[in-house]
Amino acid sequence: MSYPDKVTIKEVGPRDGLQNEKEILDAKNKIEWINLLSQSGLSYIEITSFVHPKWIPQLSDAKKVAKEISRKPGVTYAALVPNMHGLEAALEANVDEVSVFMSASESHNLKNINKSIGDTFPVLEKVVQTAKKEHKMVRGYVSTVFGCPYEGRVAIDQVLKVCDSLFDMGISDISLGDTIGVANPRQVEEMLNILLKRYEASLLALHFHDTRGMALANIIKSLDYGITTFDSSIGGLGGCPYAPGASGNVATDDLVHMLEKMGIETGIDLDKLLKAASYIQETLKKPLQSHLMSMYNQTIT
Amino acid sequence: MSYPDKVTIKEVGPRDGLQNEKEILDAKNKIEWINLLSQSGLSYIEITSFVHPKWIPQLSDAKKVAKEISRKPGVTYAALVPNMHGLEAALEANVDEVSVFMSASESHNLKNINKSIGDTFPVLEKVVQTAKKEHKMVRGYVSTVFGCPYEGRVAIDQVLKVCDSLFDMGISDISLGDTIGVANPRQVEEMLNILLKRYEASLLALHFHDTRGMALANIIKSLDYGITTFDSSIGGLGGCPYAPGASGNVATDDLVHMLEKMGIETGIDLDKLLKAASYIQETLKKPLQSHLMSMYNQTIT
Repeated sequence: MSYPDKVTIKEVGPRDGLQNEKEILDAKNKIEWINLLSQSGLSYIEITSFVHPKWIPQLSDAKKVAKEISRKPGVTYAALVPNMHGLEAALEANVDEVSVFMSASESHNLKNINKSIGDTFPVLEKVVQTAKKEHKMVRGYVSTVFGCPYEGRVAIDQVLKVCDSLFDMGISDISLGDTIGVANPRQVEEMLNILLKRYEASLLALHFHDTRGMALANIIKSLDYGITTFDSSIGGLGGCPYAPGASGNVATDDLVHMLEKMGIETGIDLDKLLKAASYIQETLKKPLQSHLMSMYNQTIT
Repeated sequence: MSYPDKVTIKEVGPRDGLQNEKEILDAKNKIEWINLLSQSGLSYIEITSFVHPKWIPQLSDAKKVAKEISRKPGVTYAALVPNMHGLEAALEANVDEVSVFMSASESHNLKNINKSIGDTFPVLEKVVQTAKKEHKMVRGYVSTVFGCPYEGRVAIDQVLKVCDSLFDMGISDISLGDTIGVANPRQVEEMLNILLKRYEASLLALHFHDTRGMALANIIKSLDYGITTFDSSIGGLGGCPYAPGASGNVATDDLVHMLEKMGIETGIDLDKLLKAASYIQETLKKPLQSHLMSMYNQTIT
């Protein structure tokens, strides 16, 4: 019964959510939406990804979005960058922080980045060094930590190896991704038991997808282990490329609701958050799947 | 990290699920469905409710269903009874076990049973005594344990008072109901901390609705406290009368999946369970909302 007083939620809907939606939105709508998110009390918003439009056409307007949103003081506006080309664009758009990404499993890394894990390190190292020279913090995403769509379970040693390399490069914190939503609470405990012998809890975030409904349960176990940073996507936006029709990221609204009811401060105003969710579902013309949005949609019809 | 080796799941879909669905099914379909559920490895199925058809027309065929299902040895076929009249019908249909119900909050009890809590006790006492003379175990449902749609939070003392009275009558075990799906993991801990000072964990079951997505997280916390019996409804069948469109009971399939992945035995074959879920969603002509059924429906289309 010893929960933290505060938890930090990093909103990844504009990046991880939208990149998994078929619909391509206008930059104007994204900007309006991110401005609504800023007003909700979120302290960190990953607004886009500076990847080649060939890979993620949904985010081809990254620079415009980053330049034209209203920056609310105290909010960190971050963006994903795959390489130096992405980093340069992100720096030009003056994002506050950048994130790099790779997978804990070889096959997923190869499919996703088109490089082996070994070949990915030097690419990311250059990005991290350059970003740090520009006084930008760099977050590291590690995908498939709890399971890989091609390899199944991933050895914890492999996760440690990737995390060690990223921290050695100067990454500020690592987001451990349950990319395909297979993590269960016992597995989360086993993973954290080992990782927390090596890294401070404050250096780690957990990034759960809710594909099989276990995300909030996994977060509860992570809290037991002292983790206080979680990634989530408003309304549970985005799906899973490996399980079409299944849930995407854990929903920010469901997470904020649970934490606040538990007396854990998030700094986020749920009503304002639901307004931002409502805006994006109208823009996407499809009901969001989170529990809170399902209830909200009933009350307004 | 000390989880139980085994958990008992009590399937309440044919009763709690169907009574919250608009569609009224043929007895024939219910019987086929319950027979499929029996084949999945479930050890306890609440098959119907012997209440007046005026209140729950969906279950007006209680006697026919109870008499015509195939009874698999080792499976307990239970039914809800509100009073002596219901008990007599249930005994005539020879159900294995009966359940009685009341609320922890006065206003919900009054709305649901049309009696004060004080006036409900003697009615249930007669049912319990008569059932026990017939060598039937009697389960007690207590609704609104974690919150009432009319009164909000319910005092733990009120919950204790109702549980004490039910155990004094000779109830074998109590299912603590989060009727409107408001319980959060911290509240579950607080409640269990007090209840388990008074009652053995084996005498209590937890009955969560997933209205706000917290059901599996609450179950994880309940496991931490030694609870090993949970109620659930296949596919998350049934809604919430107080939040139309919202989720119903926690889904048996999502729960079985999580527990089995955690190495906790349920005795249930998930494939067979999903077949039973598939049968009922075809019969109801609407997709079930559980995470596993959402994935399952994608793979078969």
